[in-house]
Amino acid sequence: MDVYGTPLKPSLHEWTDLIEGIVETGDSPLVGEPIYNLNREDTREFDAIIIGGGAAGRFCGAFLKARGGRALIVDKWPFLGGSCPHEACVPHHVFSDAARELDLSRLMAGKLWYDKEWKDRKVSILEVRDLFLSGRGLAHALMNLQTKDQLNVEYILNTPAKVIDKNTVEIAGETFKTRSIVLATGARTQLPDIPGLEQKGVYDFATLISDLDYEPSKCVIIGGSKIAIEYGSFFNAAGIPTTILTRSGLMSPNSLHHVDDDLRDFVVDGMKVRGIEIIQGIEPLEVTGDGKQVSGVRYRTADGGEAFVEADFVFIATGEKPLSAPFVDALGVEVDGRGNIQVDWTCETSVKGVYAVGDLIGPPLEMFKARKTGTVAARNIMGEHFEWDYTDFADFLHSTYEVVWMGLSEKEARAKYENVVIIKMPVDGIPPEDFALPAGDGSMFIAMARPELSGFFKIVFDGDSRKLVGAHYVGFGVKNAFQYLEVLMKQGITIDELGQVNELFLNDLIPQLCRLRAGNAVLRDL
Amino acid sequence: MDVYGTPLKPSLHEWTDLIEGIVETGDSPLVGEPIYNLNREDTREFDAIIIGGGAAGRFCGAFLKARGGRALIVDKWPFLGGSCPHEACVPHHVFSDAARELDLSRLMAGKLWYDKEWKDRKVSILEVRDLFLSGRGLAHALMNLQTKDQLNVEYILNTPAKVIDKNTVEIAGETFKTRSIVLATGARTQLPDIPGLEQKGVYDFATLISDLDYEPSKCVIIGGSKIAIEYGSFFNAAGIPTTILTRSGLMSPNSLHHVDDDLRDFVVDGMKVRGIEIIQGIEPLEVTGDGKQVSGVRYRTADGGEAFVEADFVFIATGEKPLSAPFVDALGVEVDGRGNIQVDWTCETSVKGVYAVGDLIGPPLEMFKARKTGTVAARNIMGEHFEWDYTDFADFLHSTYEVVWMGLSEKEARAKYENVVIIKMPVDGIPPEDFALPAGDGSMFIAMARPELSGFFKIVFDGDSRKLVGAHYVGFGVKNAFQYLEVLMKQGITIDELGQVNELFLNDLIPQLCRLRAGNAVLRDL
Repeated sequence: MDVYGTPLKPSLHEWTDLIEGIVETGDSPLVGEPIYNLNREDTREFDAIIIGGGAAGRFCGAFLKARGGRALIVDKWPFLGGSCPHEACVPHHVFSDAARELDLSRLMAGKLWYDKEWKDRKVSILEVRDLFLSGRGLAHALMNLQTKDQLNVEYILNTPAKVIDKNTVEIAGETFKTRSIVLATGARTQLPDIPGLEQKGVYDFATLISDLDYEPSKCVIIGGSKIAIEYGSFFNAAGIPTTILTRSGLMSPNSLHHVDDDLRDFVVDGMKVRGIEIIQGIEPLEVTGDGKQVSGVRYRTADGGEAFVEADFVFIATGEKPLSAPFVDALGVEVDGRGNIQVDWTCETSVKGVYAVGDLIGPPLEMFKARKTGTVAARNIMGEHFEWDYTDFADFLHSTYEVVWMGLSEKEARAKYENVVIIKMPVDGIPPEDFALPAGDGSMFIAMARPELSGFFKIVFDGDSRKLVGAHYVGFGVKNAFQYLEVLMKQGITIDELGQVNELFLNDLIPQLCRLRAGNAVLRDL
Repeated sequence: MDVYGTPLKPSLHEWTDLIEGIVETGDSPLVGEPIYNLNREDTREFDAIIIGGGAAGRFCGAFLKARGGRALIVDKWPFLGGSCPHEACVPHHVFSDAARELDLSRLMAGKLWYDKEWKDRKVSILEVRDLFLSGRGLAHALMNLQTKDQLNVEYILNTPAKVIDKNTVEIAGETFKTRSIVLATGARTQLPDIPGLEQKGVYDFATLISDLDYEPSKCVIIGGSKIAIEYGSFFNAAGIPTTILTRSGLMSPNSLHHVDDDLRDFVVDGMKVRGIEIIQGIEPLEVTGDGKQVSGVRYRTADGGEAFVEADFVFIATGEKPLSAPFVDALGVEVDGRGNIQVDWTCETSVKGVYAVGDLIGPPLEMFKARKTGTVAARNIMGEHFEWDYTDFADFLHSTYEVVWMGLSEKEARAKYENVVIIKMPVDGIPPEDFALPAGDGSMFIAMARPELSGFFKIVFDGDSRKLVGAHYVGFGVKNAFQYLEVLMKQGITIDELGQVNELFLNDLIPQLCRLRAGNAVLRDL
């Protein structure tokens, strides 16, 4: 199918029907047929062929085009945008909103219009998943439409790309030449090396979307990644008893940087208060079952014994592995022990002219890094030398809360600075159940009904330079804020300058609490 | 009662009992008795006596103390913090969270776990009010405790202050000398000059908290202020048919600055979609009734006729007037035609050594201005010449959404710059019901179920300098962000620099959409 040169055709709905015919129903004549948005009258060589049209590849193509280059994006799926709108970030946020609403209903059970039955009520997770699916087609369609009609980037979808050499890619039997190649095929769940995973009842974030066809009644999560916390909080909030089996604990320094101990405690204790069982120090041994349906998980305990936990739903959250193997074979790009393609700060691989971006190059597997590495590769391909170090960044996850953090934890700050000043809430010396702060948009009911669960925050200063060096928040409505606060922190904003920020009250408390201390020549904790 | 020199005594609960005994039950022996937190062994003159211990006065006292000065705060209420935790900002946010949850339940009626009956269900607003009241005592107590034990500021509460002259204040029969006076008694609802307001059934935001004792069944709001939008959205979401009678329309340029037309349309149309009747161009004539209970409101219509709307609940939202009269009498401070005390950018009034801060000095009646003018007065009293112009600021209100805006509207930008570039969502050319953006934390269900109601955003650039000059957002989770984005905008951040911000995805869309355009030498709309 050729869609090139058809401005605003296909329409959004035509794109939706086209994609859903391939992905959802599988009954379209276009199954297995490439979708070409290719200007065959343009005889210029491609500046880049981008293998993979997810966030990283799509932003690479858009930026390269904006800089006057010619890009071709290829994806095996019939849509651009990759796993995010299909099965990853977007459903994750639908589930997190569900977790938040369900948690609020349970905390408020018997108060206001919240029925008492919320204490024990179980709700359908299939219905939540299906609500997401009902809107997915339009999201896919929008990516195709925007990339074609607004960003004017060429692409070929619904067909795999085969890399022949660093200047040659074969797509649907046709050979395309290019000045450079950008690898952007992402990552997939890293399954643990244990028996029993082939049985029905084992899912990850992707197959939960595509395959789940029953309502689980008991969930075991193997792994302690962000996904374990996020999806576990949702399953539990939906009323499914949930156990998390994790080697190194939740929000462990092995997997996440700069996590403050008090922040972790608030998050993990909050999960336990809500009934999630968290068993750490374990080694998974086997997903048990009759060969068809899972019955539970056998694991080695922290003290070396063996134990078993029953489940009809086993969710794998042990992290992800990059889909780099075909490029090692075809191009010989260097990878690390986990298969992550090795790149320099320009995103160039060990093979000159071959770039890799997004999840393929290893942690963090976050959207900002995917998209921005796409633009970094594009800049360098178009002749600008541009380096970007993404190893320090504001981070987040969801439990039933938004959890955001950046800069140094209190412990890290104390190791680095002699005079660390902390502002936090709840404050020490007052029982948290008497202390309904932090509170703001989204947490007022919790603050009134269960003050100790309203949230947590801590900001960390170097008391000598008076500079903000870390910020840590659990609550609602602060995730977006940390995007911009990170910029200000990296600029070196001081407590005095933060005290000058105009708060939009009720807010995250940061400007006003800084202001209460900013008047002092010698800073003290608050 | 003397609480000075009793560190961490009274405890939070003792403060709560003490305050509630006076405010809620009125049966305490302390009714009418001053509460002294006064160091009588300190013989220094006061640098400032602060009349009014709300946000402005309390921050003034804290900053002055931090700078080594001696401050005394006096308040007629037995608690510090003023109207905000007592009857204004805090209950407003409880009601706004209620409006949001109720609206979500209605939009989702019949989907997931949301009963079909949500389409018509009426809920109790007394119960929401009472939920707020159940937590209010601890909030009051915290202000007293923090100010005494953490900030070490002296105060006398539960008694009025009488200003004798610019260096003398009489408090509970005792005369105190001071180097300067800070006036911080705030504002109260400005009632319209119409008959019938004395009847039962007429409320404002304050008496709603203190006096309402029935469930309204039909609401009329007189006025078009922020409060009209915020409280009207709550009443309506609770299932009370609501009519807003307003002279100049909602979000009018007469009352709010920099409101973008498309933003206003999204908010006001969204209120209408939810069933709020908005009648503008009117002049209220009379609150009708039998002398005891209201029956409705008679008003002059835009075309000069007369009309009547029935109601058992009339809510006044016509703005506020400053409580400045006693200070005009005692000190001769200059006021404007509305009674706002006139100050320069140091917050000094026409009487040297007398300062005025907070709502007393006129718009904006916002927390950031109250608190920061408190610190501005403190700085100047302590010998630092410090001027602060608060006339340009990021602003917000709630409908069932968070609505935030800053900088120039599109129209203002086009008047000022030749080459204005707009990024907005929903985009033109795609029906909003097909376009589930913006979406993020808090709006995922709406985005999936009712895409056209998921939100709105527009950012405005001067295309030549590439600088951000305005930002406008309707949705959730962006209010805190605009605090810091305002700082960056005032620094002159460009679209290219915004494109370098690390997004915490799913986010407000701003960094990534800027990035999609930032690659272009010549900027275009998106």
